[in-house]
Amino acid sequence: MAKKELQHIDLKSIQNPEFLKGMSYPELDLLSEDIRKYIIDVTSKNGGHLSSNLGTVEAIISLCKNFDFTKDKIVFDVGHQCYTYKILTGRNLDTLRQKGGVSGFQKMSESPYDHFEAGHSSTSISVATGLAYARDLSGEKYDIIAFIGDSSLQNGLAFEGLNELAQSGHKVIIVLNDNDMSISKGVGGLSRLFRNFSTSIIYRKTKGAMRHVLKGRFGRWLLVKFTRIKNWFKRKVINMTIFDNLGYSVIGPIDGHYIRQIDHALVRAKKQSKSVVIHLKTIKGKGYEFAEEDTEGDWHGVSKFNIETGEIATKEATVSWSSQYAVLLKNEMAINEKIVTIVPATGHGSALDSLFNIYPNRVVDVGISEEHAFTFAGGLAVSGFHPVISIYSTFLQRSYDELSHDLARMNLNATLLIDRAGLVGNDGETHQGIYDEAFLYTIPNVTITMASRSSEALSLVKESLCNHGVFAIRYPREFFSTKGDEVKKIPYGSWKVELEGKDTAIVSTGPLTMKLKAALIENKKDVTLYNAIYLRPMDKAKVQALLKYKRVIIYNPYATKEGFANALESELFANKYQGEVIVKCVPTIFVKQASIKEQREEFKITVDDVIELL
Amino acid sequence: MAKKELQHIDLKSIQNPEFLKGMSYPELDLLSEDIRKYIIDVTSKNGGHLSSNLGTVEAIISLCKNFDFTKDKIVFDVGHQCYTYKILTGRNLDTLRQKGGVSGFQKMSESPYDHFEAGHSSTSISVATGLAYARDLSGEKYDIIAFIGDSSLQNGLAFEGLNELAQSGHKVIIVLNDNDMSISKGVGGLSRLFRNFSTSIIYRKTKGAMRHVLKGRFGRWLLVKFTRIKNWFKRKVINMTIFDNLGYSVIGPIDGHYIRQIDHALVRAKKQSKSVVIHLKTIKGKGYEFAEEDTEGDWHGVSKFNIETGEIATKEATVSWSSQYAVLLKNEMAINEKIVTIVPATGHGSALDSLFNIYPNRVVDVGISEEHAFTFAGGLAVSGFHPVISIYSTFLQRSYDELSHDLARMNLNATLLIDRAGLVGNDGETHQGIYDEAFLYTIPNVTITMASRSSEALSLVKESLCNHGVFAIRYPREFFSTKGDEVKKIPYGSWKVELEGKDTAIVSTGPLTMKLKAALIENKKDVTLYNAIYLRPMDKAKVQALLKYKRVIIYNPYATKEGFANALESELFANKYQGEVIVKCVPTIFVKQASIKEQREEFKITVDDVIELL
Repeated sequence: MAKKELQHIDLKSIQNPEFLKGMSYPELDLLSEDIRKYIIDVTSKNGGHLSSNLGTVEAIISLCKNFDFTKDKIVFDVGHQCYTYKILTGRNLDTLRQKGGVSGFQKMSESPYDHFEAGHSSTSISVATGLAYARDLSGEKYDIIAFIGDSSLQNGLAFEGLNELAQSGHKVIIVLNDNDMSISKGVGGLSRLFRNFSTSIIYRKTKGAMRHVLKGRFGRWLLVKFTRIKNWFKRKVINMTIFDNLGYSVIGPIDGHYIRQIDHALVRAKKQSKSVVIHLKTIKGKGYEFAEEDTEGDWHGVSKFNIETGEIATKEATVSWSSQYAVLLKNEMAINEKIVTIVPATGHGSALDSLFNIYPNRVVDVGISEEHAFTFAGGLAVSGFHPVISIYSTFLQRSYDELSHDLARMNLNATLLIDRAGLVGNDGETHQGIYDEAFLYTIPNVTITMASRSSEALSLVKESLCNHGVFAIRYPREFFSTKGDEVKKIPYGSWKVELEGKDTAIVSTGPLTMKLKAALIENKKDVTLYNAIYLRPMDKAKVQALLKYKRVIIYNPYATKEGFANALESELFANKYQGEVIVKCVPTIFVKQASIKEQREEFKITVDDVIELL
Repeated sequence: MAKKELQHIDLKSIQNPEFLKGMSYPELDLLSEDIRKYIIDVTSKNGGHLSSNLGTVEAIISLCKNFDFTKDKIVFDVGHQCYTYKILTGRNLDTLRQKGGVSGFQKMSESPYDHFEAGHSSTSISVATGLAYARDLSGEKYDIIAFIGDSSLQNGLAFEGLNELAQSGHKVIIVLNDNDMSISKGVGGLSRLFRNFSTSIIYRKTKGAMRHVLKGRFGRWLLVKFTRIKNWFKRKVINMTIFDNLGYSVIGPIDGHYIRQIDHALVRAKKQSKSVVIHLKTIKGKGYEFAEEDTEGDWHGVSKFNIETGEIATKEATVSWSSQYAVLLKNEMAINEKIVTIVPATGHGSALDSLFNIYPNRVVDVGISEEHAFTFAGGLAVSGFHPVISIYSTFLQRSYDELSHDLARMNLNATLLIDRAGLVGNDGETHQGIYDEAFLYTIPNVTITMASRSSEALSLVKESLCNHGVFAIRYPREFFSTKGDEVKKIPYGSWKVELEGKDTAIVSTGPLTMKLKAALIENKKDVTLYNAIYLRPMDKAKVQALLKYKRVIIYNPYATKEGFANALESELFANKYQGEVIVKCVPTIFVKQASIKEQREEFKITVDDVIELL
């Protein structure tokens, strides 16, 4: 084969994507292979997003070859699929996701090649629309690309952007990366649309076979022409997708791993005067066997793994809080048939996979539709069902209005399992779960809790089912030891006294409370330790008890101070407390990537930092 | 004419809609007329939503005739179009929107005929999906209707609901009330879709002419058949709307003021086993000349007006804060061509109409797309433009994530003009603007301000354009006197000393500060009055100055305490303040309808209540 004679590019010496322009297709294919290997290698060490990056190698090569991103602009939706882009624009991925290193998402401070930033889904079309308005108002000429996956299109924000862009008259090139998969399996009528449009396995196989037969330049040319004519016909006659409906010009679907064909599409799209959609069919996880065969999302976001065996490194004798709550939920669903679990595409991340099989009618993955999840829950709750919504803290932000307007306002019963609350570590600014406690505090009728150990978690889950309106249970992206733990009911709204001492009282919340307790005992500190399992409502009896202490330390390393900490201070003022108050919370800033440990050390909110105060 | 012999129904004696079943079409037409007169009469006295209610009279009569809403369920999107439904289900509208009276929206506590509640747009499909899941999980049999306007469909939440419902297999009947208008003119590619589908004036006129010719029973039958065949053909061949795309069965479009035709459609929809859309073409404001001719939204939500002349009652010698900020914005746009104003369908309500004509390229109505508004703004801001987003406080809730993730996180510059901040009065629980200050406080990098007088408003608008990141300016749904006012620059982040005295310091914010100042002078109270124009960042020098007072009163009748008030208390603790703190804020509850004055009296947050403390 000719491939052996081709030259490998040293990926770490790349300065910018200029070199791509002189390369032949076989050379580009080799480059694709090398990039894949590097991505697999880096994520196996640093963790990160694997499958989405393996699926977009050729598309990004072609984009960088056909556009000049010192002038043209590109917005990656979510941004977790931009590793190839980082490599081609001169960034060494060895420090990926580490403190001070390269971000796992686009980052403007990192490179002039990054034109916006994201982390949450479905923002790219709206951003690109803004960029296009700005370009045209300034009378400038360059291209703007929005690069978006099929499942991101399920989100309402993407739809609002598509709708606005369609009638704005400003041009954006939308590259649809359609892998029919997303974080979990695509759901909803929209994904049905994409599937209808030649995404079946039969289509893929036929295409593969044809490519095999139609080798050589002429063969490829013929294949491209054939596909184009077929698609034109289908589109004109069947007028099938939402893009056609909204008035977009559409190119494709085309094979998103076939650089020559993507090149053709991009050249065509450039020539158009109005917004155009390029529909790419890609295979998520392409080139890495385990990821390619993954249908559940195991290889979407990964921690360290063994490349050969595909084994993911986990700590022994520990259980994640996600798994723990998944078990508790499963047990309650078994005895209470009124529970319906709703999850916006994060079922795998929150360890709920098995629930889908056990209760197919009572576990609903609504896709990346955080708004709908809550309003839908309102409809269930008003009908006497008890919705349990499992959601990451950072994505809960998108449901603020629906949580308030469609649940809390009518005081409907629902349980929120807020996963990844607190600092999340290496995903950085866009994924921190430190704000939900504070914003939930601004909504009336919402109970807010956090367990310090699994027995409390059980008690909270059970209590949440007892008609308290919206009942939020926060838990961190961490592991806990499964050793020894007594099960005990915690009265609604009450804190637990862990230690009794004098002069100083510490009000602590969440799992670190256990570590703090151990440290206090070990260091023989004569202080009182309250475990604030309920962050709202406030345990007023315990607040009264606080008044006698000279000093109150509020320790909440899982949230900013605008929620519980400030509310407790206000309560102390209302009770004319005259002592000193020290607040140890996460600062109200956007927190950069680093390990959770590094982040806590930086903010001086470790258990040791509390001990030092005493 | 036969009409004269028909019997009028006493609308106020209606107990339930059972009586409709025995009525002839001419009788139903007379009923429609009477209902319209009553709605015009009531809204002319109490204010309320006029146009949307006039447009839905026949549709609701037909729904109440064909379904049994003691068993079947209906969810009105937004809910501002349900007056006819209220009348037919036995509610006297004379107390509409008054304290203790009938709500302007659906209200479960008011009647068993109300199955959910709203106030914000685009929730109905998600709610109905929840109701349908619940019905089917319980093995019950009844129909569920989602009644939604065309512009509500532009919102992402509605799309998420449509997408999920389409694939769920649960049946909902969606009644699309397509008046091609909504609050303001429908915008976006989606509205283009509806317009394409036989909504043109020519279509309407032809239809009207045909109806004129095809009189009598057979004529009507023929018309119905003709329309149905034409629509079937168009739909099968052109496959045109987003509903067809998502897999819905569609009936229509049909004339939404023609009860017989609606009856037919509902009977057909009932028989289907899967979700179906009934596309009604209606005329917003139908039957009231001024409202019918209104293209700007003047007659969407009204205050008291004269039925004969169409004149709306306004207070003399006063200007609304909305108008004031609209003028300030216009002035800045004239001298700064980098300003782009974005408004999510509330341009009329916020008095921005004239701006659209003056700067057609720099004022963008994105429709009811609050999420998109902010992410779009991010794209503009990163390109060096300065987006000004005009939005009602209550609708800002829907942009929480985008404000944080797509603007504040990157510290991009944008001005938020937050209209209707504080208590809003008669719209009730769903529209209160009392939460934004608190939830903005949970997002890093956001400046939060409120002016007490127009000179400060000017200073704030100018300051907001000076690279401070996201700069929020709150203002209430109230009028202020235009008399005498000096213009003066307020340094960024600072409070103003209005009065100096001893022992007690009051920290007040917003327009009532002026009234408080006058009352303090009049009552010869020797206290210090700070005007907290900047609610964030905190004026630390003034906080230091507070420490010497025995008592600090925080007076913020425009927000709950979780924002500024709690933050100031926390700051006082951090400075070891030993005195008393009294907080006078709106309670953290969902506030029922009443006048703003009545609401303030109830919560003891009037100026007199503050004076009484001294």
